[in-house]
Amino acid sequence: MTLTTVKEALAIILNNTEDYGVEEIDFLNSVGRILKENIFADRDFPPFNRVSMDGIAVASEAFNNGQRTFKIEGVQAAGSAQLTLQNKQNCIEAMTGAMLPNGCDVIIQYELLTIENGFAKVNLEEVKDFQNVHLKGLDRKVGVILIPRNTLISPAEIGVFATVGKSKVKVAKQPKVMIVSTGNELVEVTETPAEHQIRRSNAYTLVSLLERLHIKAETSHILDDKQVLKSKINTFLNEYDVLIFSGAVSKGKFDFIPEVLNELGVKKLFHQVKQRPGKPFWFGTKTTAKDKNNKIVFAFPGNPVSTFISCLKYFRPWYLKSVELHFENQQQAILSEDFFFKPNLTYFLQVKLHQKEGKLYATPAAGKGSGDLANLIDADAFLELPDDKTDFKKGTVFPILLYR
Amino acid sequence: MTLTTVKEALAIILNNTEDYGVEEIDFLNSVGRILKENIFADRDFPPFNRVSMDGIAVASEAFNNGQRTFKIEGVQAAGSAQLTLQNKQNCIEAMTGAMLPNGCDVIIQYELLTIENGFAKVNLEEVKDFQNVHLKGLDRKVGVILIPRNTLISPAEIGVFATVGKSKVKVAKQPKVMIVSTGNELVEVTETPAEHQIRRSNAYTLVSLLERLHIKAETSHILDDKQVLKSKINTFLNEYDVLIFSGAVSKGKFDFIPEVLNELGVKKLFHQVKQRPGKPFWFGTKTTAKDKNNKIVFAFPGNPVSTFISCLKYFRPWYLKSVELHFENQQQAILSEDFFFKPNLTYFLQVKLHQKEGKLYATPAAGKGSGDLANLIDADAFLELPDDKTDFKKGTVFPILLYR
Repeated sequence: MTLTTVKEALAIILNNTEDYGVEEIDFLNSVGRILKENIFADRDFPPFNRVSMDGIAVASEAFNNGQRTFKIEGVQAAGSAQLTLQNKQNCIEAMTGAMLPNGCDVIIQYELLTIENGFAKVNLEEVKDFQNVHLKGLDRKVGVILIPRNTLISPAEIGVFATVGKSKVKVAKQPKVMIVSTGNELVEVTETPAEHQIRRSNAYTLVSLLERLHIKAETSHILDDKQVLKSKINTFLNEYDVLIFSGAVSKGKFDFIPEVLNELGVKKLFHQVKQRPGKPFWFGTKTTAKDKNNKIVFAFPGNPVSTFISCLKYFRPWYLKSVELHFENQQQAILSEDFFFKPNLTYFLQVKLHQKEGKLYATPAAGKGSGDLANLIDADAFLELPDDKTDFKKGTVFPILLYR
Repeated sequence: MTLTTVKEALAIILNNTEDYGVEEIDFLNSVGRILKENIFADRDFPPFNRVSMDGIAVASEAFNNGQRTFKIEGVQAAGSAQLTLQNKQNCIEAMTGAMLPNGCDVIIQYELLTIENGFAKVNLEEVKDFQNVHLKGLDRKVGVILIPRNTLISPAEIGVFATVGKSKVKVAKQPKVMIVSTGNELVEVTETPAEHQIRRSNAYTLVSLLERLHIKAETSHILDDKQVLKSKINTFLNEYDVLIFSGAVSKGKFDFIPEVLNELGVKKLFHQVKQRPGKPFWFGTKTTAKDKNNKIVFAFPGNPVSTFISCLKYFRPWYLKSVELHFENQQQAILSEDFFFKPNLTYFLQVKLHQKEGKLYATPAAGKGSGDLANLIDADAFLELPDDKTDFKKGTVFPILLYR
């Protein structure tokens, strides 16, 4: 059996992305989601000639004629309608965020003033045009796109939504995901396992990894019984967009998943990838009605580290491409010591990262293999070592998959 | 008035951290929180000699005596009690995740077998001790610390919590935070501003930034009226641990915050920092009863970019130190082009980041000043340029504050 390479596997997966449409949500809940509309400037930015220092507003003409003492006519507060300077020889006190009063074109800040008996005396040689004034439309003009469609929403975008009055925003709808663990050896977190049992953990790790993508997945556990598996998976295929399995995809007598999926009409696109950990990974899709999304099935091996890396390496980019997030540059890190790995497989090496002077270094924290869940604690990322080499030299750069 | 330097300001803030205690929460809700207990291995990892490949379990003694065909006695499934090999010349089929049957010490995988009529024929020259067996306690021994106190919880930790049966975990309690915006020019997001008004945005940006730290902050807006400010702030000082203000800390006629805070017994620790943007930043604390937490007040300037950078530069490290998260290495980036900034201030330059071959580069995206909210969209981070230089050369490394 020829194995699918990591590159081929990822290409097949990215060739099977799905568009789950758009929903409108409250802008304050949108951080981490993908924007599905262009956000336009509803007004000029700033919307008026805005005072940017506290001080007095004057007409530069008077100042340039040599005048240095100005009678204070009034106060232009932020949030008040625009005043008009009645006498060109006077001034108006003006506050940061206020409109520049009509008839004034310069703000002189308090630091350069002495105010006494209703007069402001200026200690300044010359003024610049519109000094301390943030001119209307200088930042952005009304109607321009402030945030383009397909932006990942961060706190910076939240501020812009608020400013332009977008209390509701259109975002990519999330796929409905069911995470299924299998295996008779698994008991619940709250139970005490017998000697031959262990607690169920992969499903929860996957839930947390998907939560990072703001996907609220559901979970289910099914025992190693072919008929039960078939009936439950059939229901899940009807009710969910994506199924993620953990376990039962290898060569064991009770590894029914590939067989059951086949019987339920899920077409295998590959099984077994030239990688460690995670070699028994199975991926397939089920075609549905023409106007509906195909069902996507990621069946990851049951070892904890295999499930973990497979989710990062395959599910995440599948999701990001599905919601049309422009695919981020693949991050890379510099190997900090020589490493040797013989098998002719892509190796996902667990590494501890540290950044120094703008450079990202990766130190191997290899652990005891794909079952060594606790070793994930001691690392931050996986370094992806290609299958065509065995000696990996200190100082060489490789792609990384971060999980912290 | 001498300005506080950025370094001094941060040192004062970090000297005023508070311990808000511990709470116990459901393990699945704990991602992003700070663990406040050591997590121990409740059993050996793995808890038994675990089969790591599907195949047959044999006694190496028989194999080493030249035997290559083994009668199959039974099947050791994952999740079943341990079987015992009845006859040393026989074998037991054994599945990944199962206990190694008693009397066996080697697993030979299916790929190397031919099974016919109840007999497994082995195509293999030699076996290694315990091959394809993940030995009991190899990864971790019962009783060792798997996750130390004060770890930031990620999906990797979730898997370990589940495995050791920690359905509830102790985490740092979050401070109760009230975010207060001020300014008569501000209207709500859902309202249409008059010409001299703008919509309220900083409070929401701050909410989103704090949400990243898993703090659910509340918000309030107060008009520029000294008595109203005083009465509301007094209430907030009683009900919240931390107040964050945006606006009314500069020299304007309605910048009542420093005065009101002083009257309410909040001690100013500094006002005005040698930085751009964000110079008018005010910070203080109010001492309370001996066994209670002091109240912490961050009063940021009202310009959107000032508020944003101040939260990243000051509130975030204050929080991280308060919950005892070992302070991450300050990330740095390499300036990708020459930059010039004259004033004798620390300058937080907005930059666009890109990573290439393990190196992080920062390209200036300076924008139109502290009011240019939309420019935050075009950048990813702030590069912190020190106050003792004016020429910043391409290729030099500076600290960064990331917000995406």
